Amino acid sequence: MIQKLVNEIKKKNAPIVVGLDPQMSFIPEELLNKYYAEKGHTLDAVADAIYDYNVGLMDAVSDLIPAVKPQVAMYEQFGIPGIIAYKKTVDYAHTKGLVVIGDIKRGDIGSTSTAYAVGHIGSVEIGGEKIYPFDEDIVTVNPYLGSDGVKPFIEVCNKEDRGIFVLVKTSNPSSGEFQDREIDGRPLYEIVADKVTEWGLDSMDGDYSNVGAVVGATYPEMGILLRKAMPKAYILVPGYGAQGGSGKDLKGFFNEDGLGAIVNSSRGIIAAYKNEKYAGMDYKDAARQATIDMIEDIRVNALS
Amino acid sequence: MIQKLVNEIKKKNAPIVVGLDPQMSFIPEELLNKYYAEKGHTLDAVADAIYDYNVGLMDAVSDLIPAVKPQVAMYEQFGIPGIIAYKKTVDYAHTKGLVVIGDIKRGDIGSTSTAYAVGHIGSVEIGGEKIYPFDEDIVTVNPYLGSDGVKPFIEVCNKEDRGIFVLVKTSNPSSGEFQDREIDGRPLYEIVADKVTEWGLDSMDGDYSNVGAVVGATYPEMGILLRKAMPKAYILVPGYGAQGGSGKDLKGFFNEDGLGAIVNSSRGIIAAYKNEKYAGMDYKDAARQATIDMIEDIRVNALS
Repeated sequence: MIQKLVNEIKKKNAPIVVGLDPQMSFIPEELLNKYYAEKGHTLDAVADAIYDYNVGLMDAVSDLIPAVKPQVAMYEQFGIPGIIAYKKTVDYAHTKGLVVIGDIKRGDIGSTSTAYAVGHIGSVEIGGEKIYPFDEDIVTVNPYLGSDGVKPFIEVCNKEDRGIFVLVKTSNPSSGEFQDREIDGRPLYEIVADKVTEWGLDSMDGDYSNVGAVVGATYPEMGILLRKAMPKAYILVPGYGAQGGSGKDLKGFFNEDGLGAIVNSSRGIIAAYKNEKYAGMDYKDAARQATIDMIEDIRVNALS
Repeated sequence: MIQKLVNEIKKKNAPIVVGLDPQMSFIPEELLNKYYAEKGHTLDAVADAIYDYNVGLMDAVSDLIPAVKPQVAMYEQFGIPGIIAYKKTVDYAHTKGLVVIGDIKRGDIGSTSTAYAVGHIGSVEIGGEKIYPFDEDIVTVNPYLGSDGVKPFIEVCNKEDRGIFVLVKTSNPSSGEFQDREIDGRPLYEIVADKVTEWGLDSMDGDYSNVGAVVGATYPEMGILLRKAMPKAYILVPGYGAQGGSGKDLKGFFNEDGLGAIVNSSRGIIAAYKNEKYAGMDYKDAARQATIDMIEDIRVNALS
């Protein structure tokens, strides 16, 4: 799967992913009102508005980008209708040729982690038939429970040619509370990075492993270090844009061939129409222009 | 909320919770076949069988226990129909007067953690109306992302009188890979435990905080230490039974008043009919007898 993502990144010449994290405040009011009129003030109405909004976004940017990253929490908050909108978003992204990175940050143990893995990137067998319940291509995974939590995902990756990004150093201000604490003179995130390298050894797909890592754009010096510590891991980089990271911070996340990292922006693209820089544009045009601007920023400041 | 759980524990005189973690291999074949006949080999059929099985289990044991703990992964693996079965299970548990601990192990940052929190233990506001999408009473939370990930849950707990259990020391064999690593001479799980105490200070509900902790039954010596380190945190104890923990290992998880911990068993109860000890019983009778036996084990070996 990582090779497929690399191919798409090369084809579009854009190592970026658009985060489909639909907060209610991002959805244009006319869209919400349309579905309120049809379905009342219900979870169904919001879920339909979210899906409509996502379709508009994907139609506007899918020729520019290799992948989308829906954040499942933003759907799960609207209960079952929200999760139906998540699944429809995954399916629509596939029709547009996009790689889907499900930002689910799941992590449990043994048979429970297996359940998450088969549900999201694998298949369940019912009466001899294989069914792919959510069918994302890649998902994010939380490592706090250790190998027992991660290996079931890797088994499914190997069986179904899918991928995972393991949280190593997250983009948020308090990520250091535990992740930066020193163990034998090295921060926890380095210990986790060592494990990512080890976990990924048997999951190579081209030059990279199907076991990648998440490292926040907000910590560029750690990006440099972790890029070297995990030579075969693709790095998913959140925190660009709204969270404070910019193109010049990202140089160290990439290898010299311009590969090795994929940078996410969510709010900066999907809610670009609320930014004065894109004033007067509708949400789709603003998202398209913000995507073009982001790609340019990364080409000029991170990759050259 | 924790006071409500304590009241129910006292009323039933049983500090235990039954984990509703329906693996397909646990569901009696006649139940699966009934729904296969109706709906074919589909996710819908399995989801209906799961819900039917759960109703049978809850009917069999609800007078004996204060709470159930559905593990959402086991539902999520069956896609949207699975999640519908999860939600119906939560609702049915409430009609039986049971406290519902959603074992979701979510954890993200900022607005994303808020989304998980409002979706599971809180409410979303749509056109001025409050809707509770999943409506569990308590959920489990992963702390790897630090305070940014946990505080949004606590805000919702305080607003809606709900609770969380934060993963501190999990029951699985590899939990030590990161959780036991020493930081300034103390293992990471102790550093997390300090944070649990700090996070819970403003969420007191009776003698305990709505911010509790997860500590595995498989690590009794750490249970003793963590019981003292987090005096106000209720401890949810997984790992009893099938994972190897037994009543005598659990003494140290409780305070002298017999409170402070609630012990989970999943497979040992819901699949008791597959255990030769309960041979010949149907799944409901076996679950009931296994619950009675577990309560007895804990009363005799952990609490006296």
